[in-house]
Formats: sequence, C-alpha cells, structure tokens
Amino acid sequence: MLVSKKVNIYSILSGTWRHFLIEIIACLAAYTLYRYVESLHVFDSVVISSKIPTILGTALAFFIGFNNNQAYDRWWEARKIWGALVNDSRSFGRQVFFYMKGDVTTESIKKDKVRMIYRHIAFVYALKESLRGTISREYRNYLCEEEWKAVEKESNIPNAILNLQSQDLEMHYDKGNIDGFKFLELNKMIVGFCDEMGMSERIKNTVFPTTYNFYTRVFIWIFIVSITWSAVDGMGAWSILVGILVGYVFLTTHKIGMALLNPFEAIPSGISLNQITRAIEINLLEMLGESKIPPPEEVVNGEYIM
Amino acid sequence: MLVSKKVNIYSILSGTWRHFLIEIIACLAAYTLYRYVESLHVFDSVVISSKIPTILGTALAFFIGFNNNQAYDRWWEARKIWGALVNDSRSFGRQVFFYMKGDVTTESIKKDKVRMIYRHIAFVYALKESLRGTISREYRNYLCEEEWKAVEKESNIPNAILNLQSQDLEMHYDKGNIDGFKFLELNKMIVGFCDEMGMSERIKNTVFPTTYNFYTRVFIWIFIVSITWSAVDGMGAWSILVGILVGYVFLTTHKIGMALLNPFEAIPSGISLNQITRAIEINLLEMLGESKIPPPEEVVNGEYIM
Amino acid sequence: MLVSKKVNIYSILSGTWRHFLIEIIACLAAYTLYRYVESLHVFDSVVISSKIPTILGTALAFFIGFNNNQAYDRWWEARKIWGALVNDSRSFGRQVFFYMKGDVTTESIKKDKVRMIYRHIAFVYALKESLRGTISREYRNYLCEEEWKAVEKESNIPNAILNLQSQDLEMHYDKGNIDGFKFLELNKMIVGFCDEMGMSERIKNTVFPTTYNFYTRVFIWIFIVSITWSAVDGMGAWSILVGILVGYVFLTTHKIGMALLNPFEAIPSGISLNQITRAIEINLLEMLGESKIPPPEEVVNGEYIM
Amino acid sequence: MLVSKKVNIYSILSGTWRHFLIEIIACLAAYTLYRYVESLHVFDSVVISSKIPTILGTALAFFIGFNNNQAYDRWWEARKIWGALVNDSRSFGRQVFFYMKGDVTTESIKKDKVRMIYRHIAFVYALKESLRGTISREYRNYLCEEEWKAVEKESNIPNAILNLQSQDLEMHYDKGNIDGFKFLELNKMIVGFCDEMGMSERIKNTVFPTTYNFYTRVFIWIFIVSITWSAVDGMGAWSILVGILVGYVFLTTHKIGMALLNPFEAIPSGISLNQITRAIEINLLEMLGESKIPPPEEVVNGEYIM
Amino acid sequence: MLVSKKVNIYSILSGTWRHFLIEIIACLAAYTLYRYVESLHVFDSVVISSKIPTILGTALAFFIGFNNNQAYDRWWEARKIWGALVNDSRSFGRQVFFYMKGDVTTESIKKDKVRMIYRHIAFVYALKESLRGTISREYRNYLCEEEWKAVEKESNIPNAILNLQSQDLEMHYDKGNIDGFKFLELNKMIVGFCDEMGMSERIKNTVFPTTYNFYTRVFIWIFIVSITWSAVDGMGAWSILVGILVGYVFLTTHKIGMALLNPFEAIPSGISLNQITRAIEINLLEMLGESKIPPPEEVVNGEYIM
Repeated sequence: MLVSKKVNIYSILSGTWRHFLIEIIACLAAYTLYRYVESLHVFDSVVISSKIPTILGTALAFFIGFNNNQAYDRWWEARKIWGALVNDSRSFGRQVFFYMKGDVTTESIKKDKVRMIYRHIAFVYALKESLRGTISREYRNYLCEEEWKAVEKESNIPNAILNLQSQDLEMHYDKGNIDGFKFLELNKMIVGFCDEMGMSERIKNTVFPTTYNFYTRVFIWIFIVSITWSAVDGMGAWSILVGILVGYVFLTTHKIGMALLNPFEAIPSGISLNQITRAIEINLLEMLGESKIPPPEEVVNGEYIM
Repeated sequence: MLVSKKVNIYSILSGTWRHFLIEIIACLAAYTLYRYVESLHVFDSVVISSKIPTILGTALAFFIGFNNNQAYDRWWEARKIWGALVNDSRSFGRQVFFYMKGDVTTESIKKDKVRMIYRHIAFVYALKESLRGTISREYRNYLCEEEWKAVEKESNIPNAILNLQSQDLEMHYDKGNIDGFKFLELNKMIVGFCDEMGMSERIKNTVFPTTYNFYTRVFIWIFIVSITWSAVDGMGAWSILVGILVGYVFLTTHKIGMALLNPFEAIPSGISLNQITRAIEINLLEMLGESKIPPPEEVVNGEYIM
Repeated sequence: MLVSKKVNIYSILSGTWRHFLIEIIACLAAYTLYRYVESLHVFDSVVISSKIPTILGTALAFFIGFNNNQAYDRWWEARKIWGALVNDSRSFGRQVFFYMKGDVTTESIKKDKVRMIYRHIAFVYALKESLRGTISREYRNYLCEEEWKAVEKESNIPNAILNLQSQDLEMHYDKGNIDGFKFLELNKMIVGFCDEMGMSERIKNTVFPTTYNFYTRVFIWIFIVSITWSAVDGMGAWSILVGILVGYVFLTTHKIGMALLNPFEAIPSGISLNQITRAIEINLLEMLGESKIPPPEEVVNGEYIM
Repeated sequence: MLVSKKVNIYSILSGTWRHFLIEIIACLAAYTLYRYVESLHVFDSVVISSKIPTILGTALAFFIGFNNNQAYDRWWEARKIWGALVNDSRSFGRQVFFYMKGDVTTESIKKDKVRMIYRHIAFVYALKESLRGTISREYRNYLCEEEWKAVEKESNIPNAILNLQSQDLEMHYDKGNIDGFKFLELNKMIVGFCDEMGMSERIKNTVFPTTYNFYTRVFIWIFIVSITWSAVDGMGAWSILVGILVGYVFLTTHKIGMALLNPFEAIPSGISLNQITRAIEINLLEMLGESKIPPPEEVVNGEYIM
Repeated sequence: MLVSKKVNIYSILSGTWRHFLIEIIACLAAYTLYRYVESLHVFDSVVISSKIPTILGTALAFFIGFNNNQAYDRWWEARKIWGALVNDSRSFGRQVFFYMKGDVTTESIKKDKVRMIYRHIAFVYALKESLRGTISREYRNYLCEEEWKAVEKESNIPNAILNLQSQDLEMHYDKGNIDGFKFLELNKMIVGFCDEMGMSERIKNTVFPTTYNFYTRVFIWIFIVSITWSAVDGMGAWSILVGILVGYVFLTTHKIGMALLNPFEAIPSGISLNQITRAIEINLLEMLGESKIPPPEEVVNGEYIM
C-alpha cells in the first residue's frame, strides 16, 4: 500500500517509460503514414474530422471510468475484508482470553488459551501466504509440529487451521470451560474468519473480465492514432506532441486503475497484508502479556508498505 | 469465467466477425445512399452537421455505460452469492463434523455426519444443474437411491434436499446429538443455503429489461449511420472507415457488457459454477479424510473455466 | 416482468407512437416558426449556435442517466425484496413443517402446521393484492372464514395475518411444541416478513420526486426544439428529421427508465408478483405433500409475466 | 413528500421566479458589458470561443450530477430509516402484545402491554418533533404525567423514553412475564429504535459540505455569463435568451437536488414524518383493538403530504 | 465539520489564494511562451486545435468526479461509523444501567455500573485521541489511576480499555449479576465497539492511492496550459483570463474533494469527533443522573465544529 503523500518521480518514470516510448513510436508512425498517404495524391482528402477523436474520447472516458470504478471497488473491498479480519481477531482474542474458564487448574486453561490465540496468528499468516502465493511458512512459528504437519496435508491450509479451532472449541464446550452463550459467540467468530478467508479468495481468484482490459487498450490506441491524424491538418508536426500528451492522460489513467485490480499481489499499490498481519500479531501478543513483541512492519523506501 | 490474462485473438474474431460484417454493410449502404441522394440534386444540402453524432455519441456513452454497470453488478453479485455458498459450505461441514456428538456409538454418528455432508455436496450439484439447465444428475452420486428418488418428485430439487437436511437436523436435536445452541448455528446455515439458492434463482430468472438492450442497439445503428453521413462531406469515401471504426468501439463495448448479463449460463464469461462446485466438494471430502478426492476443474483452452 | 429476449415491434409502436407524434408536430412547428421569424427580417440572425444543443445534450444525458439509475435501483430493490420473501417463505415453511413437535397426537399437530403454512400463503396473496391495489381476495382460499373476517376488520390485512401467526407461535411455545431456540428462529422469520412487507410498501408509497420527472421532460422538449433550430441553417428542412431522430433517442431513454419507477404496478415492466406468489404457493404445497398443486403463472403473449 | 404525479405550475413558478429573475438580470448585464467593452475598441477581440462554455458545461454537468446523487442518497436513506422504524414498530407491538404473559392477573398484564405500546407511539412522536424542531409535545398524549415530566428533564427526549422501555422490559423479565428468548427479541427491537433514532439525527445534523453547494452556484453563474458572451458574436441579442434558457436548465437541476438535502425539514420535498408517525399510531392502536383511531394524515393541496 | 450554511468568503480566499496565484503565473507563462515561439517563425503554426482542451476537459471531469466520489464516500463512511458508535454507546449504557442486577447490595452494583459506563466514555475519548493523533489524555478523567496506568502500557489504548470491559463483563456474568442472554447482548456491544474502532483506523490508515491525486493535478495543469494556448488564437491576451477561470473551476472542484479524504483530521471539513464524543458523554452522564454535565462542543467562528 502506498503510504507516502509525496510521489516519487523516479518510481513513476520507471513505471511508465515503457508505454510512453510505445506512444512516441505510435504517434510518429501515425504522422509518417499520414504524410505518405497524402503524398500519393490518390485520395481527395485524408483530413480526419476533429469530431472523431472527440466522440471516441468521450466514449473512452466512460469506459476507463468504468474500469477504474470497478478496480477501486475491488481494492477497497479487499481492504475492508482485511479490516474486518483485524476487528474479529481482536474480539476473538479478547473472548478466548477473558471468557474461558478452566475447570481443572488455572495453569492448564492458560496454556489452552495461548494455544488457541497462537493458532489464530498462524491462521492469519497462512491466509496471507496463500493470497500472496509465497511459501515462507511463517505460520509454523505459531503451531506445534504435530499441528503444522497435519494442516499441511490439506490443500487449503488456513481452512485446515480453522478445523483445529473448531475442534478445540468443541472440546472446551464439552468440558464446560465455556457455556452455550460463549460457544455461540466464539463459533460466530470462526464462521467470520471462514467468511473473510473465502471473500479474500474470491477477489484473488476472480479475474476481472479480460475483455474489458483488452478492448480498453485497443480503443486507447485507436484514439491516439486518430487524434494525431486529426491534428496534422492545422498543426503539422506538432500533432505528434498532441497525440503523445493526450494519449498519456488516457493511458496513465487506465494504468493506475489496473494497478488496483489485484489487491492481494505483493506490489506497492496492493493491500499491505504484511503490515496488517503483523498488527494482529502485536495486538494479540500484547494482550497475552508476552515480553517478546515483534516490531511493526516497516515502510519501504519511505514510499509503500507491504 | 475467463481466467487467462492474455486474450485469444482467434476467439475474439470468432465472437465479433458477425457484427463487424453487418457494420461494414451498414456503412457502405449509408455512404451509397448519401451519394445517390446527393446526385438527385433535389435537396439543397444533405450535409449532416457533425454535431448530431457528437450529441448522439455522448448520450450513447451514457446509455452503454449504464447497461455495462448493471450487467457487471449482476455478474459480481452472482459471484458473491457463490462465494458465500463456498464459505457457508465450509462452515456447515466443519460444524457438522466437529460439533455433533453421538449418544450411542461413535460409529453410527460418524455415518450420520458423512451422510449430511454428502447430501450438502449433492445440494450444490443440484443447484448448479438447475441454474445451468443441465440434466447430468451428478448429485445422485452423493445421495442414496431412496433420497434421490424422493427429491426428484418435487419441482425444485435443491430445495427438496434442504428439506432432508432440516429433517435430519431435527432428528439429531431430538436425540440430543446437538444442543439448542448448535441447533441454532446449524439451522442458520440451512437458512443461508436457502437464501443463496433463492438469490441465484432471482438473478437467473429476472430478465434484464429487454427494452434497454433493444433500444441501445437501435441507437447504436442510428449513430453509426449518422457518423458515416456526417463524415462524407470532408472525408469522402474514408467516411466508411470512420463509421466502421467508431461504431466498432461502441458496439463492442455494448457486447461485452451484455455477455455478463446472464452469469449462470455455461459461457466463457459466466461464473465458473463447475469449478466452485468442485472446490466445495474437495474441501468437504478432505475434511472427512476421504482417500478418493477428485481433481480441481480444469481450464479450457488455457482461456476460461466453466 | 418482461421475459422474452425478443422485442415485440407491435407493442413498442403501440407504446411510443404518441410521443413520436408529438415530437413530429414539435419539430415541424419549430421549423415553421424559424422560417417565419427569418422572413420578418427583423433580427440580424436567428442562427442558433450548434453549441447550445451540445451543451444541453450533455446535461440532459446526465439528468436522464440519473433518473434511469434511480428507477432501475427501485425496480431491482423491489425484486430483491420479493426474492427475500421467497427465501424466507421456504425457510419458514421448512421450519414449521420439520421443527414443530406435537405433544398430544401427531394428527393434531399436523393440522396446526398446515394451518400456519396455509396462512402464510394467504399473507403473500394479501400482500400482493395490497401492493397491486386489486381486490380479488384470493387470500381467503387459505384462511378459514373466522380468520378472514377478523383480518378484514383491520386496515392493513397482511399485517393482521402476521398477528395471527405470532399468536399461534406463542400458543405452540406455551404448549411446548417448540422450544426457545426454535421460537427464536421462527419469530425471526415473522419479523422478516414484516420487514419485507414494509419495504414493499415503502417503494410503492414513496413517489419518486415529481420535479425530476417534470423538468426532465421540459428540458427534453427545449432540447428538441433547439436542436431543430440549430440544424436549419446548413441542413434546411432536413433539420426536422434530425430533431425527431435525436429527440427520439432522448425521449425513449427517459421513458423506459420511467417505466421501472413503480415496480409493483400491474404493467409488463413491473415485478411479476403473480408469478412469485404462485411459486411460493407451489413450493409450500409440494412440501406439504398436497395432491392439488396449481400450475405456474403463464407468460402473456410470449412477452411478459405478471 | 410530494405525492401528486401532476406538477402544480403555480408552485413551480412561486419556487423558481426568484432565480429566474436574477438570471435575466445577469444575462442582460453580461450582454451590456460585452457591447460596452466592444465599443471601446481597446481590445483586438472580445469573442469568447464557444469551447469555453462547452468545457464548463461538461464539468458542471458532472458536478451537479454528483451533488444530486448525494442529495438523493441522503433523502432515500432517510426514507429507508423511517421505513425500518415502521417495520420495527409493528414487530415490537406484535411481540409485546402476543408474547408477554402475566403471572398475576390477565387484567394487570394487559395494562402493562398497553403502557409499553403507548409509550412507543410517544417515542415516535418525540423523535419526529426533535427532527422537525417543533414543540407541539404531542407525545404527551401517550405518556402519563409522571413519565413526560421525567423524560422532559433530559436533553434527548426520545432517548429518555427508550430508557423507560428498557426499565419496563427488565421488570417484566424479572417477574417472569417474558423468558430469556423473548427478552432477547424485545431488547433487539429497542436497540433497533436507538439505531434508527441515531441514524436520523446523523442525517439531520451532518451538513452536506457547504463548499460543494457554494462553488456549484458560483460555477453556474460563471457558466451563464460565459455562454451569453460566447453567443453574442453570431446571435446578437438572442444570446440573452440562450443564456437564460441554458442557465435555467442547470440552475433548476441544481435546485431540485438541493431540495432533497435536508429530508427531515417540514418542506414539501421532505420525508412525510407526520404521515409515517400517524401510520404507526394507527397500526398499533388497531392491534390493541382501540375504538378511537385517528384518521390518516391528509394530502395538502393535492400535492404533498407532511 | 462545516455547520454554517453561509460560506465565509475570507476563509475561502485564505484557502485558495495560493493555487490561484500559481494559476495566474502558469497562464501568463503559457501565453508568453506561445507568443515567443510564434515570433521565432520557425514552425508553420502553433495554433492548438480547440478540440484538445475539450477532450482533456471531458476526461478530467470524469477523473475529478471519480476522486470526489471516493473522497465523499470515505467521509460519509467515517460519519456513519461514528454515528453507529453514538447509537451503540447509548444502547450499551442503557443495558448496563437497567439490566445489571446486584446480588449483594444495590450500592455495590451501582458503583460497578458507573465504572463500566465511565470506562466507556474513556474509550470514546481514547479512540478520538488516537484518530486525531493528539495526546491530551482526557480519557484519564474517566478511569481510575490503576486503570489508565495499565492501558497506557499497551500500544493500542482504546483496545486495552475494551479488554477491561470484557474482564468486567465476565466477572458480572460469573457472579450472576447478568444471565446468559444479557451477556450475549452486552458482549455484542463490545464486539461492535471493536468493529467501529477498527473501521475508523482503516479509514485513517489507508492512504487514498496517491497516484490518483498526483496525476489528477498533473493533468489539470496540462489542461490549463492547453486551454490557454488554444484560446490565444482568436482571443489574444484574453486567453490568460480564460485559462485562469476555467482552470479555477477544475482545480477548486478537485481541492474540495481532496479536503474530505482524511475525515478524522482536525480540519474544518473533517468529522466533528470532539462534538460527537461530547454528545456521547452528555447522554451517558444524564442517564446516570449526574449533576455536573459538560456543555456541548461549541461552533468555532460560527463556521465549523471540531
């Protein structure tokens, strides 16, 4: 997630020089072709009415606007889901820590509580890894060996961890450490985690209809060429500059929308899963009164946070 | 659902050549008519002010934008519903598996659990078939003969399967295998499945107001003809190319929106019901610890998944 | 609700010929007035810059787009409410049928269940009639005489039926036929029906701000006249055709939006309350195992369903 | 709330003549200034390119569209909140009436029920008055003297009434007139009323960012002047009419949006709080079987209802 | 939050003079450059087709509209969250005050109630400070020394206060001062506070994608220069005024949207956290029947409230 309110010119240039170059080539080619066709004196006129780029421009503005809206909605929905995960994690930790009562010895129940809360941190780490497609297996730090061996047998690791949580919950309910009302509240939290996991997977796995993206780019290039051509008559070689400049506005607007389409990828514009995961970890460890608390995730280059 | 980020030129051409051809014919006809009327020397002028296509173009952009927005919303809502179905299926399976307690023998309750989870897989298959309009009856694999004979008597098969689930739930509650709190949570899941079924049916059965679709197409053709005519004066025969190109942008934008209107149809742009159904099946079978797990649904042509 | 994907040209003509005719008259009048004023030679110029209709056209496109969006939202919300009514009706029926336990004889409780489910069908019929403003009193078929005489004394019949349901629910709870948890679930359904009833009434009774509708039409006519005038200079009498054509696009777009504003009226574009009511009836009767099941509502003219 | 589908020309004129007059003066002044500057022969040219109003017009259309959208959303949200209040009031009344069981004598509990339902009507009246800012104190009719003296001591009267309801609910729970499950359902209703009260207050107290409103009006006047000026060259004095007409479209669109911004004010376009309050009153009194039922709120001038 | 419906001209000038000045300089520079390049007689023509600013203007209107929409949505969502906090605070206070029953002496339980409600006021103050980034530590007034020393040890103070509330709730449940149903309702409130805290943090910490803001400003300046240039030919030095005026509309629209992006900052356009916090405080203290009630937050300059 971008965090700096200042924009790094270098990273902007490194991100846009490629399509900028293609644009220059396209406008030069369009201009050259125009002059060549004109020199043939075969056709009456090669002037393109300036209406054409105007109409195309309006249509494109709508189209790009539509894409940007949907992309932003995906991004913001992803952020909301992980925000809800933070809230539910805190509530879950609080409920496990304060509402569970050991019927044997306080010591034993304390261990059980820590295990459930640790396991939840492992769930968040596992979910992050499955969304990011990484395999650092950091979740193992919060599971005992027996547990992580078991969950890695299933294809969906975070889901397998939730199974363990449900099993534990049932065990505590059975033992009478929690009553039916507390069972209800804690089970609601596990259902919530399952929902947030599934919603994240939905956004990750549902490709935004590729045709939108493809045609938008096709239409932008048609537009860039047509605006260059329509400007030749009247502005001469300046039309190349006009094509580049106006095209740049449309292309860039399109690109920054597209950068939000896959909010869970490990890119600067993505949701800062590392940061959120760490924040949950810190909140829960602080509540447990642990002494070794990891530091918050750091900002990279003063620009973004992963 | 389209999954490839690359766009297959062949499938694009095969999908658009028809309206492309009609467009060429329309623009040629418009041009010919213009020249013919002009040659009659009956009217003062046949020049169409270039304002007309500009105004029509703006109005059309709004109209197509509106249609695209609604179509995308239907598609995304459909995806959300099936995403919720995935989440609820996992939670339901987890709750049945971990929260049900046999009062007689562990063996007997194990069988009961498997039956309820199998039946849920059958529910998802039956719902998929009713939305897709297919009759492969794959749901029978997860029902005993007596059950599928019973449910096929009713007009709404997935609904009939939910009836069986409620009956079983009541039986377990009555026997004391679950208590009131667990009954509450499990019943909530069945209500949820009923909601997701009904919401899917709503999207499938509610035709997007046909007049929108019809008039949009009528207006696009009016627009294509008017842009061709308005360009003849000044650009000559090139106006045909202009009409085709600009018309292509509007027609295609309209078409890709319309492809999202019926998200449950078995078309490449539809929601991948086969894939989601299979994913639920795998998740639940893995939890049951079954040895024979079917493979995930495969991508067709490296392009889309059903 | 329109169901055919083909559009009936006849019904379109019969629905639009009136405003089409007014349009022709308006454009003719505008043209005539222009020529008359011109012939007076009083004013320097009567040419209207073509900018005026362009600006008005853009503003109008926004305005009509806004109206269409709100109209479609009302329509879709209405559809969602009745979709939720279907889902809740199925869940309610299922819960009454499977979760209620007679403490005396199975026979007596069976009758009680049937009565509650029949009464729910009556509720849906009564709600439909109150939304449509009809008085066929079909709901009486599912109530005993004593009941329909009682509910018809109140000003809001469906609400009075819900009172009876609550009374019955309390009676069963009191007798111990359902326990607290089941009471909770069933009461939630009755609250849900009350919400869906109230939400339907809200849409029906809240007139879309009339000023929007009025001014949109005023502005469309100003626009039609101005586009005709601005086209006279340059296109002569053809301007009449231009005015009619462009005006037709705007007027029709406005009209089809307005047709969605009152989704509960018995018009082809309205929500198909008859069909949904019948579907609920069929679902519930099938569950009860009745032998006489009415057929689904039929499509009228192959075009729409009420 | 406007209820008539016909628009009263008189009320429209009385509502718009003021800004219409200002517009005429503005356009006349703009024209005069233009001619005066022109007559000085100091500047080469005072012609304003017709592009300027076109660009401003598009930008303004967006801006006004944005304002209208937000205004309509506030209005519709307000309507939804009061719709939810109607639904919850009916459910609350129903639950109090049918689910409460007296352990002493039927007579005593009947009185308690009536008191709670009367007090709820008082709540709705008090909320209406606090939103409308009136002080007719109609809520006193449904409270005993002791009660209204107590609640008027607090700054937020409807909130104080809810306190009384909670106190009563606790008393009945304590006495065993309701059990835990019913307590849960009834408490949920009181929480719901508190939410609906707070949401209404939020809309009433949150001023729509004043800068939007201010700048929109500034830009509209800049636009009106610029369109008049740009039309002088080519149309002469007719430009005044053009400025007035086009400006009228933009100004009026803006004004009707702004009329929806404060939905709880006692203006014709506001939400009909009087009508809704009375409808709740009638529904609840009918359920109680009272003989003296007040008539529904009447339409004023056949135009709107308060 | 701005509260005055009148706009203070002085505060507008002080807020916009800076970008107004830059605009003047930019337009002057653009004009000078144009004339200089023209005087070189190197290029055929330096006339920029008036189409360029038209196309750019439409695209910009979309872009600024998109930014404004998202900014307003963030602002309104923030307002809704704090509205929900008000509602939940009232309900929480009411439930603690009326539903908790002391099993020992009325005096002791009264003190416990006051402590929980005071602590909730402390929670709201602590949340406000963490969102505003202030450190006045006003929350200490409502906590005993032992408590505020404990909570200040954790990195997230409001979250630590919620831990105390959960601990107390468990204690009261354990002692039997509340039963399971009341526990359920009160725990739901604590979960709600945790959600509202997390949602506020999400809005505060999620920077709106900086690229949108950056490019919008870049494109506005490109637009201002291009409109100035395109107007030189035809309007001469007047083009500077045109550039300034049209640019002003776009720049200002952009700026007022951006002022809503960070709704929790202590700026006039932000959400009035001070006012809302105080309102919650007053509501709860009044319910407790306290004699010393602080006055409502005051309006600053008759313009805004913090």
